[in-house]
Amino acid sequence: MKHTDIKKLFTNSAEYVEKSVIVCGWVRTFRDSKTISFVELNDGTSFKNLQLIIDKDKNIDTKNLVAGTSLKVEGLLVESEKNGVELQVANLEVLGECPAEYPLQKKRHTLEFLREIPHLRIRTRYFQAVFTVRDQLAQAIHKYFHLNGYKYLHAPIITASDCEGAGEMFRVTTQDWNANYKTEQEYYADDFFGAKAGLSVSCQLEGEMAAMGLGRIYTFGPTFRAEHSNTTKHLAEFWHVEPEVCFADINDIIEIGEEFIKFIIKDCLENCKDELAFLNQYGEQGLLEKLEHVVNSDFAKVDYTDAVEILKKSGKQFVYPVEWGDDLQTEHEKYLTDEYFKKPTFVVNYPAHIKSFYMKQNPDGKTVAATDLLVPGIGEIIGCSEREADLDKLLEAMKKRNMPTEAYEDYLATRRFGSVPHSGFGLGFDRMLMYIAGVQNIRDTLMFPRTVGKI
Amino acid sequence: MKHTDIKKLFTNSAEYVEKSVIVCGWVRTFRDSKTISFVELNDGTSFKNLQLIIDKDKNIDTKNLVAGTSLKVEGLLVESEKNGVELQVANLEVLGECPAEYPLQKKRHTLEFLREIPHLRIRTRYFQAVFTVRDQLAQAIHKYFHLNGYKYLHAPIITASDCEGAGEMFRVTTQDWNANYKTEQEYYADDFFGAKAGLSVSCQLEGEMAAMGLGRIYTFGPTFRAEHSNTTKHLAEFWHVEPEVCFADINDIIEIGEEFIKFIIKDCLENCKDELAFLNQYGEQGLLEKLEHVVNSDFAKVDYTDAVEILKKSGKQFVYPVEWGDDLQTEHEKYLTDEYFKKPTFVVNYPAHIKSFYMKQNPDGKTVAATDLLVPGIGEIIGCSEREADLDKLLEAMKKRNMPTEAYEDYLATRRFGSVPHSGFGLGFDRMLMYIAGVQNIRDTLMFPRTVGKI
Repeated sequence: MKHTDIKKLFTNSAEYVEKSVIVCGWVRTFRDSKTISFVELNDGTSFKNLQLIIDKDKNIDTKNLVAGTSLKVEGLLVESEKNGVELQVANLEVLGECPAEYPLQKKRHTLEFLREIPHLRIRTRYFQAVFTVRDQLAQAIHKYFHLNGYKYLHAPIITASDCEGAGEMFRVTTQDWNANYKTEQEYYADDFFGAKAGLSVSCQLEGEMAAMGLGRIYTFGPTFRAEHSNTTKHLAEFWHVEPEVCFADINDIIEIGEEFIKFIIKDCLENCKDELAFLNQYGEQGLLEKLEHVVNSDFAKVDYTDAVEILKKSGKQFVYPVEWGDDLQTEHEKYLTDEYFKKPTFVVNYPAHIKSFYMKQNPDGKTVAATDLLVPGIGEIIGCSEREADLDKLLEAMKKRNMPTEAYEDYLATRRFGSVPHSGFGLGFDRMLMYIAGVQNIRDTLMFPRTVGKI
Repeated sequence: MKHTDIKKLFTNSAEYVEKSVIVCGWVRTFRDSKTISFVELNDGTSFKNLQLIIDKDKNIDTKNLVAGTSLKVEGLLVESEKNGVELQVANLEVLGECPAEYPLQKKRHTLEFLREIPHLRIRTRYFQAVFTVRDQLAQAIHKYFHLNGYKYLHAPIITASDCEGAGEMFRVTTQDWNANYKTEQEYYADDFFGAKAGLSVSCQLEGEMAAMGLGRIYTFGPTFRAEHSNTTKHLAEFWHVEPEVCFADINDIIEIGEEFIKFIIKDCLENCKDELAFLNQYGEQGLLEKLEHVVNSDFAKVDYTDAVEILKKSGKQFVYPVEWGDDLQTEHEKYLTDEYFKKPTFVVNYPAHIKSFYMKQNPDGKTVAATDLLVPGIGEIIGCSEREADLDKLLEAMKKRNMPTEAYEDYLATRRFGSVPHSGFGLGFDRMLMYIAGVQNIRDTLMFPRTVGKI
């Protein structure tokens, strides 16, 4: 079907103006005057619609040109002061009609209503904008890591390990729902993998093993949490970005994290101008200003212990009083980023007992070389740490947490054979998209979001 | 840890030669002469090792520099006729020792042996090459689609639909292994999603729905088949690339498929020169020649019906005699690509009854607009089709297959509301990597492959 993308008519208009072109697309709106009909046509390649001008003298049948109808159109592309270019239609063919029961009639729909029709909401302007930014953000992430010598690793989705209770796991099975076994052991021995298997909650441990051969890696794939959290920020299935860098300490990974966040936001600002301008206007007010601020800030860095002092001296009445040793609550993070530092802030060296077993133990015996990057308006966006490279210290931390070290033998081999200082971080991709596109509910970042009770 | 990537010392050598540099990495080999010790050091950034020259006069302790030991080294980078550059060591710090029980001692290991230690095999030269090509192939796929205006779609992994028996599904659950329920309905009502859920076998149906809004999309993520196929070509978890293009008929998707395959192979040839040269030498003989041939061929195209005639007239004794209506066997495909056409070949218009319900029905009433791209030496590499855009014909095909149409209402909406001609294809990413890297067993394309009975 020879035709031209609508995007090209806008971006390379000089090549097409005053020439006959063929375009395809779906009718967004139809408007009639005495002598002319106007159609806004969109083919998915361009956020901006192409305006079709249908002269009534030409006897073109316009009675079915309702929203949702698909067309193939031939005509003369002409310059237009208002739209850049528009198309004077010579021939029009309806590819597919759109009957009156089409749920996306010409009016503004609520996001709640659209959530009930995920297979159709992707045709709306709002979701076209969000999913285009989603695409660009993913491209930017691959671009950043590729340019900086990281190798993309496909860690396993189905796994027998659980990354030390990073979250509740789904079980993966081919057994019948009512399989009849006397013991768990027999049941799993007959299962597909001959052992209990689940969906990965994090690829970090595999990422560390891979980095020991490839130097710098990143994973970017789906991970899963079977948590009964019915909030606007939780998904049972989410996309997760986890780089791991050898020969990098906590300060190196802080530098990398700042550079990475700025890079991906800047890339979206540059490549999704129309979409972000729309989202700034109809979605989150001040979105563009917020993103520009992040790109242009030098991120702050504060020790956890100092952050606790700042909070105590703030004079604020927090719902949760802050004490050294407690995890920071949203209200505390908000004060630090929105009121005190007024920019993205790394909080460094958290108490060991509120963080994971694999984090590097600091010489003070109380804290670990871990840092969360807090961002104004949303809170934690990435969690980084240097990993404990010393085998004995790592074993000690595992024993303190009653972890079965024999189940981690492959992981421990990274410290047994040529251990090196290394660091990494984790980014929830869908939450990052919420931040960049100004989406309020994480259910609106994926085509078919998976949450408890909903599939 | 300020240091320089070994890769940079080779690619930007002019910048570093005759200067003092710091590098990190793992010892690959150690060799001693009377006055000098030699170490081959690798940090994962470069396929080529950096040679360290340790002058015995300098009293540097070399007794622990066995394979696998990690080092931080400072020295003078000098030009070397044999190696391009090499490092005259001034200071050397052992970061992590490597005890004698390290399984990767200096000798050639079989792939079978290495399959038993997946967490360590990634440190070998062979797997460094394979996983670097894997990374580049993934980057090339994203690059191709992004350059051509496709949007990257994250289709759901956990799903309630089954893409019409494209393969056996894994079940995803949070129910106990011995949950006690009287009926299946009650059991699933209490499960995490309140319904029976499984792991996606294909994202095509979601891809079609998304393309109706975004115009052109591709998915690139893990999909799953719970098949008890213990072969060198089957994985229970594999990475799958599935583009979907609106306003494209079968001939358009054939053009796109050819352009795409050439693009991604060419990109790997250009960006993985060292790795592919190594794999050509120590892995598949003739690998580079094979890849160059594909890139430089005009792919052939033959009607299925003509292909059957060619096979019948070939004078070959096939194990499976070929008759119109049968699917082509490997031996038939091999004859067509290796002996008859001697290049990649699209076989077009297969009998409807051996293909899927969603494929466009040809006017002859017997065949569908589907094509497999067969490639010399491996067989089918992508399966393409134009999709049936006509609602009535699609419903008829579903009824013929006894499919419950009510379970596909969201999918059928694509044909109900503004249906358009559209086409797509599916590529098994891991199999494509086997082809490009000359890997004989699909278990060697992923860090932790998942196959029946093995996790």
